[in-house]
Amino acid sequence: MNKMNLNQKISDFNPNDYSKLEKIMKKNYPKNINFDDIENLKDLLSFAQKKYQEKWNRFIPPFDILFDRWKNAENYGFGDKSNISSLSYIIGDVKIGKNCYIGPYTILDGSAGLEIDDNTGIAAGVQIYSHDTISRSLSGYKFKPSYGKVTIGKNCFIGPNAVITKGVKIGNTCFLGANSVLTFNLNDKQAASGNPCEIIGKVEVGEKGVVIKMKK
Amino acid sequence: MNKMNLNQKISDFNPNDYSKLEKIMKKNYPKNINFDDIENLKDLLSFAQKKYQEKWNRFIPPFDILFDRWKNAENYGFGDKSNISSLSYIIGDVKIGKNCYIGPYTILDGSAGLEIDDNTGIAAGVQIYSHDTISRSLSGYKFKPSYGKVTIGKNCFIGPNAVITKGVKIGNTCFLGANSVLTFNLNDKQAASGNPCEIIGKVEVGEKGVVIKMKK
Amino acid sequence: MNKMNLNQKISDFNPNDYSKLEKIMKKNYPKNINFDDIENLKDLLSFAQKKYQEKWNRFIPPFDILFDRWKNAENYGFGDKSNISSLSYIIGDVKIGKNCYIGPYTILDGSAGLEIDDNTGIAAGVQIYSHDTISRSLSGYKFKPSYGKVTIGKNCFIGPNAVITKGVKIGNTCFLGANSVLTFNLNDKQAASGNPCEIIGKVEVGEKGVVIKMKK
Repeated sequence: MNKMNLNQKISDFNPNDYSKLEKIMKKNYPKNINFDDIENLKDLLSFAQKKYQEKWNRFIPPFDILFDRWKNAENYGFGDKSNISSLSYIIGDVKIGKNCYIGPYTILDGSAGLEIDDNTGIAAGVQIYSHDTISRSLSGYKFKPSYGKVTIGKNCFIGPNAVITKGVKIGNTCFLGANSVLTFNLNDKQAASGNPCEIIGKVEVGEKGVVIKMKK
Repeated sequence: MNKMNLNQKISDFNPNDYSKLEKIMKKNYPKNINFDDIENLKDLLSFAQKKYQEKWNRFIPPFDILFDRWKNAENYGFGDKSNISSLSYIIGDVKIGKNCYIGPYTILDGSAGLEIDDNTGIAAGVQIYSHDTISRSLSGYKFKPSYGKVTIGKNCFIGPNAVITKGVKIGNTCFLGANSVLTFNLNDKQAASGNPCEIIGKVEVGEKGVVIKMKK
Repeated sequence: MNKMNLNQKISDFNPNDYSKLEKIMKKNYPKNINFDDIENLKDLLSFAQKKYQEKWNRFIPPFDILFDRWKNAENYGFGDKSNISSLSYIIGDVKIGKNCYIGPYTILDGSAGLEIDDNTGIAAGVQIYSHDTISRSLSGYKFKPSYGKVTIGKNCFIGPNAVITKGVKIGNTCFLGANSVLTFNLNDKQAASGNPCEIIGKVEVGEKGVVIKMKK
């Protein structure tokens, strides 16, 4: 489904490099900085924002501009023509097919495996988990996180801010509504929505368009 | 309703500038960088975070600090005294009135037009769409996205993480609850909430306060 | 519950420093910048992203990498072993206990006080408010925001994208489902979920695991 982009592999892991980075990550507040350097940083970012807006008629978060969505997907080893915002967390073993759109503010947790097949759209704000820490939190760290691989088929639409919990399997051509919380499996062509989430009908892809035929 | 801030128009579109930016956006990982430069970047950002916190008693994402919320709104052509986080996506034709608050983690999609009138508050995490790609995804790219302009009146409150879908018209003085998904129109003073979303009552603005009078 | 990390206090508030920062925050778009500087910034960030990914098998937003989650919590005065993403807004008087996880895309509003006790997990996208601007928006700024302190006990799990409104008190060992909107109090061991939100059952922490015993 996906292919790793080996050209992007710049080096084997270098513990020395990471330890330098980690030291920076954990550094205390500096006593002083040069305000000219902050001004220069702001200038770079706001210039990029303006140039991007002139081209695409979109204002997007200035840092996200520096990372092309299609290039991100290539770097992350996703399939051809997929794209993903840099404002996303991709954790562990995540396999993404071709022509997938993945919006900003998302979380794709493959700590126990996550596979998403071709042409599926993952709207902004969606969180997909293959683990949870419910028992760990509720027990005050007496119990460990639990895990379950998630798979999502081809040609699915996962609406904005939807949450999919560990172990869920979604077939092909499924619809999940915005702000839904899916904790059960969906067969091919099922449509689900709401919180609590329910099966609301069946996806029918015809010659002239797509209809969700609602359950009575 | 809004006025474009022509003073902020720094230049007509320069294809040469954008092509330089695009090359950077799509650049591969570098083989090496100078760790002192990363440390300097971290220092700038954490210093800004600390100074902002000392002034406002708020810790906010370090990059968002560099972009004043009111200045953003001015740059984006919004009305007087409106403000918007730089952690927002503003797409296409978006007109925003005066005194509007727009929080972080938001998406304002004006690909088919989006108008929001004066004094309306758009809480963090809200996503407002004037297009959708549901049929495109479910058909495996056989069909195109569909479009419908969205309008929101004056003095509305759109709660955190609410999603508003294409074509929806909202009147004045309307309330939409947190995490709701609004797919239908609201008349003046209607209150709606839930997922699925329902009309829950009527907004009554009195001399001493505001009440949502619940439907029986 | 929490302890302020006085070592991190780099200086008393310096109005002169803030005024320099504010000038940068409000600066207009620059007429020109050096594209080599943008390229260098991109290189720094993408190098950090790659090194982090090689170590942890996670792609995270490049700017968030620079700010270690545990160090953030220490800087913000949270309890031992708590951690929080830099992609979070922490407003006003927020007290966080030990061993708390707080995900990205969150808002912790302590404008009227917010306390979260030990071992509680706050998933990504959660927004907790101790004020609201509902009456202010609906009245066209005739009325002011209203306030109410929020407290959350020990060993709670607050699911992804949940919203908790002003004045809510949550006991110990409580479960709140993903995408829920909690507007009422929870006693110890209560589980709530949905939108509208309802009590769904009772949390039972046994020798072998945790169960949510559902209401009939």
